[in-house]
Amino acid sequence: MSESSVPKSTLTGTARVEAFSDGVMAIAITLLILNIQVPEHEPGHLLRSLGHIWPAYLAYLASFMTIGVVWMNHHTFFGRLRRIDHVLRWWNLMLLLGVSLVPFPTIVVADALAHGSHRDAVVAVALYGIVGVIMTLPWAPMWWQLERRPEMLKAGLGPDYARRERWRAWPGLLVYAMTIGIGFLSPIIALVLFLLVSTFYGVNNKGWSSPSDPDPDEQDED
Amino acid sequence: MSESSVPKSTLTGTARVEAFSDGVMAIAITLLILNIQVPEHEPGHLLRSLGHIWPAYLAYLASFMTIGVVWMNHHTFFGRLRRIDHVLRWWNLMLLLGVSLVPFPTIVVADALAHGSHRDAVVAVALYGIVGVIMTLPWAPMWWQLERRPEMLKAGLGPDYARRERWRAWPGLLVYAMTIGIGFLSPIIALVLFLLVSTFYGVNNKGWSSPSDPDPDEQDED
Amino acid sequence: MSESSVPKSTLTGTARVEAFSDGVMAIAITLLILNIQVPEHEPGHLLRSLGHIWPAYLAYLASFMTIGVVWMNHHTFFGRLRRIDHVLRWWNLMLLLGVSLVPFPTIVVADALAHGSHRDAVVAVALYGIVGVIMTLPWAPMWWQLERRPEMLKAGLGPDYARRERWRAWPGLLVYAMTIGIGFLSPIIALVLFLLVSTFYGVNNKGWSSPSDPDPDEQDED
Amino acid sequence: MSESSVPKSTLTGTARVEAFSDGVMAIAITLLILNIQVPEHEPGHLLRSLGHIWPAYLAYLASFMTIGVVWMNHHTFFGRLRRIDHVLRWWNLMLLLGVSLVPFPTIVVADALAHGSHRDAVVAVALYGIVGVIMTLPWAPMWWQLERRPEMLKAGLGPDYARRERWRAWPGLLVYAMTIGIGFLSPIIALVLFLLVSTFYGVNNKGWSSPSDPDPDEQDED
Repeated sequence: MSESSVPKSTLTGTARVEAFSDGVMAIAITLLILNIQVPEHEPGHLLRSLGHIWPAYLAYLASFMTIGVVWMNHHTFFGRLRRIDHVLRWWNLMLLLGVSLVPFPTIVVADALAHGSHRDAVVAVALYGIVGVIMTLPWAPMWWQLERRPEMLKAGLGPDYARRERWRAWPGLLVYAMTIGIGFLSPIIALVLFLLVSTFYGVNNKGWSSPSDPDPDEQDED
Repeated sequence: MSESSVPKSTLTGTARVEAFSDGVMAIAITLLILNIQVPEHEPGHLLRSLGHIWPAYLAYLASFMTIGVVWMNHHTFFGRLRRIDHVLRWWNLMLLLGVSLVPFPTIVVADALAHGSHRDAVVAVALYGIVGVIMTLPWAPMWWQLERRPEMLKAGLGPDYARRERWRAWPGLLVYAMTIGIGFLSPIIALVLFLLVSTFYGVNNKGWSSPSDPDPDEQDED
Repeated sequence: MSESSVPKSTLTGTARVEAFSDGVMAIAITLLILNIQVPEHEPGHLLRSLGHIWPAYLAYLASFMTIGVVWMNHHTFFGRLRRIDHVLRWWNLMLLLGVSLVPFPTIVVADALAHGSHRDAVVAVALYGIVGVIMTLPWAPMWWQLERRPEMLKAGLGPDYARRERWRAWPGLLVYAMTIGIGFLSPIIALVLFLLVSTFYGVNNKGWSSPSDPDPDEQDED
Repeated sequence: MSESSVPKSTLTGTARVEAFSDGVMAIAITLLILNIQVPEHEPGHLLRSLGHIWPAYLAYLASFMTIGVVWMNHHTFFGRLRRIDHVLRWWNLMLLLGVSLVPFPTIVVADALAHGSHRDAVVAVALYGIVGVIMTLPWAPMWWQLERRPEMLKAGLGPDYARRERWRAWPGLLVYAMTIGIGFLSPIIALVLFLLVSTFYGVNNKGWSSPSDPDPDEQDED
């Protein structure tokens, strides 16, 4: 699909790809709330019921921050692009697939922590981590494609820039993989880690990019 | 995260942040209807069932108006911006977090008023008020950040303008906090107040901003 | 709220109002599918179950076409606007409230026709008609406001144009009101009428507008 | 509705039609995840439960790829347009109707494969194929309308181009129809085929269009 013998696909503007991606991420992040549901309870016991489902709040926050940070990364990534080809559109769709999956492990984790056995909680956190890995993988081929077709980048950015940025996906991958392991010891700590990592990353967005990069944001969309 | 020793983050256009925010708010406001569900009933008793869930209608209206007004405020706020930095993007995400939460207290209030005890209704209205407070808090740091980096404002608006506007968040906060108190006396009156306050605010959008402000809307987006 | 003594609110571009409205209508129209659910059935009886819920398909189609046509009207309406004021933004929010309600009567009608008594079906169709009326009402004040502030219209369109267009809302209102009456005789015929009216209107969009109107679409957005 | 005696409807820009379509497709593709739900299970049996619903994952992937590919086609189609008329807007709405339906057969197939008899699975896959056919049909009249009003195409593209492209809809139709037949023999193989065909098509987007077509993407939106 991306071999150099294949004729290069034509480039198009990024506006609609961004709009569709914004839509999918906005929906996935907002659907998460449907996962929080107060269980059946006797009249007069609402407060206790609300307390009983605390893992649902924790899972909600972790997933909200995770998708929020993916959106911020996506915003940064597309802020570097002038145009987009078919290969990039395809990997972007795979990224959206990962984001769309998030509500499922979120409810599984919340349920397992509230009602399941320790073994269920371990399985649930592992599922959460696997979806995290799926969601992180497409960044590598996306940067790789930019390295191969740097004409998609904004003026002043070249293949070296894309090569350096490609490494940014790995720490995220590592965190998700590690957290699966931690989940075997304590599922709750693993979930708290998911929350902290994405919050930290969100607050500190510039992350692994070196501060001396030429920053094309300055002459960005207006 | 926003200390002056930290190098200032680069500014980007606001288009995608607005698109993502519009998406989240549009979804949250439209999902509310999923909370209204006719309970199981004998054939021939639909009308009575529809009447029995009147608190769901009231809660729906209050939440619809609340999110609608947040959207109007958001529209006004971003109408003042030329560009946006990472700190503002982050607080905007926190604002969207608050908005995304709204469907949950809405269904809790509707359920508690229709099926719960008085104590449940008090708890539910307090939850509603707490989410209201969470949703109102981010406005203060958003204006604060504009005060510190007025270059994000449109031409003709400066730090003084942002400082004045920052106070607009407090009345909303106060109302939500007060209503939690009123909810202890009468949950229904508290819910009606939520509805009235946001409706009044929506009809009367210019709110606390002094009419002599230079109004950059006139040369707005087109 | 719209008395002439009130100082006129400032005008802003229409881009974000359209984006938010597109979002709400797109979500409402897509959520409808969640209302179609195959009832519990014995293995081997799926086909019969799928047949049994035919009123859900009919209600789905009627509501899809209804929202689709509201979107087309909205597109036409905003195609006439250069700018928008606070009063219009407010009535637009009321229009979106009506659209957001649609999934609720849709499921009520589908349920009543499949499982309820004749009386339930009459009640359900009346509810459907009432939501139709709520959804149609805001058009009148929206055109009225354009009549009072024709500077919001595109060049070449004046208050006369808005006055003429204002009458377009009434036939829709009348249809919904009439269909409530027809629903007392036969709820299914009433539902089929909802479907036919909106389909006919969708196919034949220019409707009651006189063909000699100057049509500003020609120099529209690009 | 599209006879040549009817006066031609005025042309408008495509921006809002694209935005609304992006919204509907983004929602439909993201709602799919709501169909995946872990069945009730004893504490400690989460892993087995997650395995038991494997048809839900397969159906999810097939539907995600299907809608993703429709979006890519839609993006390509509208990339050829300068303006749009009422007939095209109408057929676009029919296309969105087909896309909005997808979550329903997806859950029906997943349920039937996990819990139903062989006969149920055949019925479910046939329903899936029928929705696929409904979703593919509107492309033909859309290209046909471009053939009749080539002034809606971008500069350099004429009726010949539209005529050639019109044939692109047929292979998709054929695949869906064929797969209904294959579903009688093996519903699972049919579902895998749905997945493979759309994945293959997505990877290989340029499909049946001859590579010597003038490609207006090069001077596309920016």
